[in-house]
Amino acid sequence: MADMKVYFDHNATTPLHPEVKKEMIAAMEMFGNPSSMHAYGREARANVEASRRKVAEFIGAHDEEIIFVGSGSEANNTVLSLFVCATNQCVGGCGMRSTIITTRIEHPCVLETAECLAHRGAHVKYLDVDRYGKIDLDQLQGMLGDDVGLVSVMMANNEIGTLQDIEAITKMVHASGAYMHTDAVQAVGKVPVDVRRLGVDFLTISGHKIYGPKGVGALFVKKGVSYCPLIRGGHQERGRRAGTENTLGILGLGRAVEMRALEMTEEHNRMVQLKTALKEGIEARIDDISINGHPTDSLAGTLNVSFEGVEGEAVLLYLDLEGIAVSTGSACASGSLDPSHVLLATGVDAERAHGSIRFSMGRESTMQEVDYLLDVLPGTINKIRNMSTAYIKGGVHAASR
Amino acid sequence: MADMKVYFDHNATTPLHPEVKKEMIAAMEMFGNPSSMHAYGREARANVEASRRKVAEFIGAHDEEIIFVGSGSEANNTVLSLFVCATNQCVGGCGMRSTIITTRIEHPCVLETAECLAHRGAHVKYLDVDRYGKIDLDQLQGMLGDDVGLVSVMMANNEIGTLQDIEAITKMVHASGAYMHTDAVQAVGKVPVDVRRLGVDFLTISGHKIYGPKGVGALFVKKGVSYCPLIRGGHQERGRRAGTENTLGILGLGRAVEMRALEMTEEHNRMVQLKTALKEGIEARIDDISINGHPTDSLAGTLNVSFEGVEGEAVLLYLDLEGIAVSTGSACASGSLDPSHVLLATGVDAERAHGSIRFSMGRESTMQEVDYLLDVLPGTINKIRNMSTAYIKGGVHAASR
Ligand SMILES: Cc1ncc(COP(=O)(O)O)c(C=O)c1O
Ligand SMILES: Cc1ncc(COP(=O)(O)O)c(C=O)c1O
Repeated sequence: MADMKVYFDHNATTPLHPEVKKEMIAAMEMFGNPSSMHAYGREARANVEASRRKVAEFIGAHDEEIIFVGSGSEANNTVLSLFVCATNQCVGGCGMRSTIITTRIEHPCVLETAECLAHRGAHVKYLDVDRYGKIDLDQLQGMLGDDVGLVSVMMANNEIGTLQDIEAITKMVHASGAYMHTDAVQAVGKVPVDVRRLGVDFLTISGHKIYGPKGVGALFVKKGVSYCPLIRGGHQERGRRAGTENTLGILGLGRAVEMRALEMTEEHNRMVQLKTALKEGIEARIDDISINGHPTDSLAGTLNVSFEGVEGEAVLLYLDLEGIAVSTGSACASGSLDPSHVLLATGVDAERAHGSIRFSMGRESTMQEVDYLLDVLPGTINKIRNMSTAYIKGGVHAASR
Repeated sequence: MADMKVYFDHNATTPLHPEVKKEMIAAMEMFGNPSSMHAYGREARANVEASRRKVAEFIGAHDEEIIFVGSGSEANNTVLSLFVCATNQCVGGCGMRSTIITTRIEHPCVLETAECLAHRGAHVKYLDVDRYGKIDLDQLQGMLGDDVGLVSVMMANNEIGTLQDIEAITKMVHASGAYMHTDAVQAVGKVPVDVRRLGVDFLTISGHKIYGPKGVGALFVKKGVSYCPLIRGGHQERGRRAGTENTLGILGLGRAVEMRALEMTEEHNRMVQLKTALKEGIEARIDDISINGHPTDSLAGTLNVSFEGVEGEAVLLYLDLEGIAVSTGSACASGSLDPSHVLLATGVDAERAHGSIRFSMGRESTMQEVDYLLDVLPGTINKIRNMSTAYIKGGVHAASR
């Protein structure tokens, strides 16, 4: 059936780096609890701390500014919840600054947490984005005030790849006295991330987006910033995140960032070529498409395309039969029939949003794979369009007229 | 130096079962995101669901009653937080039942969460325990009333091994209209656990106590019981726990419970013999000791002993030099100089609590190891006692007079 296996869904998750695999397999013999005082415990503790150092170094942080957590989602939930925790006088913190500002294109783990907090005393304001997915600094400036405790703006969007200027945003946020968080899950390991240069107070990392294991993440919390744990009990992570440490996951994450440091730059250049070839190939071979996301300030490996007159799910499933894995948006929204909230926020209409596909490439992606995809895709889109009574070539989607 | 390596700290954590290791290594090739619709995602999803079935079967639950989480601590935090979530009208739930009852001997992840909730509108009441660590059902009966939303009583204590009669407790709790949670982290895989027989609404499991990986746990939530997530965003775990699934950890946990089902009974009988030999050996060879925990209703592999006139830390470190790993209590309280809250609750005084050691055996523990420990321990205790000006043989600890 399928001539080739093409995995173009690296924004959903990545395979383990061979070096990460090796590291984790070796670490399976090291089973001590890092909190134990005996030799088994001390060995595990030393390894966890070595991993913390690797993560800290990779983003220019101090070791003690890194908290290991169970996922990017947990890190994001933790940061946002800080501000309700504070609102409820749990641990003090931001006092009367009970407004949280975020964007309409954040990951659901930010948006749903923000919604929940809105029921628990926080005020939440949402930044709009332009057609490329960029926020408007003037709108942000207008929202900032002494009621704002936290601003959370993702560094790179998972669906369309658009990058925000976190450094500039942070300067404005700090000038107003609020804290700044960035969800850098899709940015770390793909573009340079230096927490000192960015100036952020909180930054989120997830292991499985960078060839590390699933179920582990890291949260950067700038020294001196007030904090209270989401998961309590136990002295792990200096009392900032309870639960016996996921030693295998943490070691895997450490090795993953180490490999990112070595491979990232070369890979970025390759990604740019692959994406250009893919984009130009699609534009040349398929009518009635549009490219989503920012033309330049975007992740090199991410291409999001709307195809008139098709359902994204259908494209995904047909490509799957040809051995090609892509996504209709974020993996964790799959199963939901709502059109992408990210595309809607960029002004794409619901019909077109439904017909969008995200291609996300990674370290093992090749030009041969792009060529294979370009061979298969036009026929697939055609086939689906022909089945649809609503699509008229060169016209607009019938239902949207 | 050390003649033998003896790991007697299985309540802190356990080595991976060889079968778990195999399963996890094999699963490293399966990297899809279980939320993805393509073949990679479906494979991962199928494996996660198979693992869920194994966990559900092991405790007599339905598949959809199992939520995978990042640790036992997270599971416990989730359950307790439900009731404040409800108190804050986040998701509805227990309405005006804002009192939580728990015990003085719970794991810190329950106690610290309860304390935090007390700052956020919940009322928390603590059950005392007797000298063996058992709660008093009459005291519980007296506390129950229509203000109580949740009762959380651990099934087996991690420090002294005492088992509670969860079935009887649950009956009383349900008669009063409250929900029942049990932290079964130390019980599952050591004693039979059947959620239907117990009748509980919530039950906590952790992977690394039963030869599975660290950083994964499972929460049983009885069908129909109202619930709201601690970590939000994403549709994972039917919307009950966001974050890309820790596939390796989940598969490891599934395999771990499978192996428990096969090995548990035989092992229990062996543990009883080892513990009896250890206990009688210590009693025969060392003066001025006392055994903590219940004489019969206790984990077969756990023995907690107070040695007059020594610091537990000193014993631990001396034994460590001899290749023997033990604990002074719970691993995650290490680093703290407070005497064990569990022992204090059983009426042991602070001096004696400081001189207590937990020996916890596991599936690879042998009678040779017990013998080696019994060879080394009397000299170790003697040496430490001789260094201490406070200890007078046959007398009481000087400082406590
Ligand atoms: C009784 C009990 N509950 C909860 C936990 C916490 O589980 P985890 O280490 O997976 O966070 C532990 C062990 O650390 C425990 O012994
Ligand atoms: C931008 C972004 N934030 C957060 C997350 C959540 O991270 P995790 O999958 O580790 O929970 C993801 C991916 O799922 C993401 O793409």
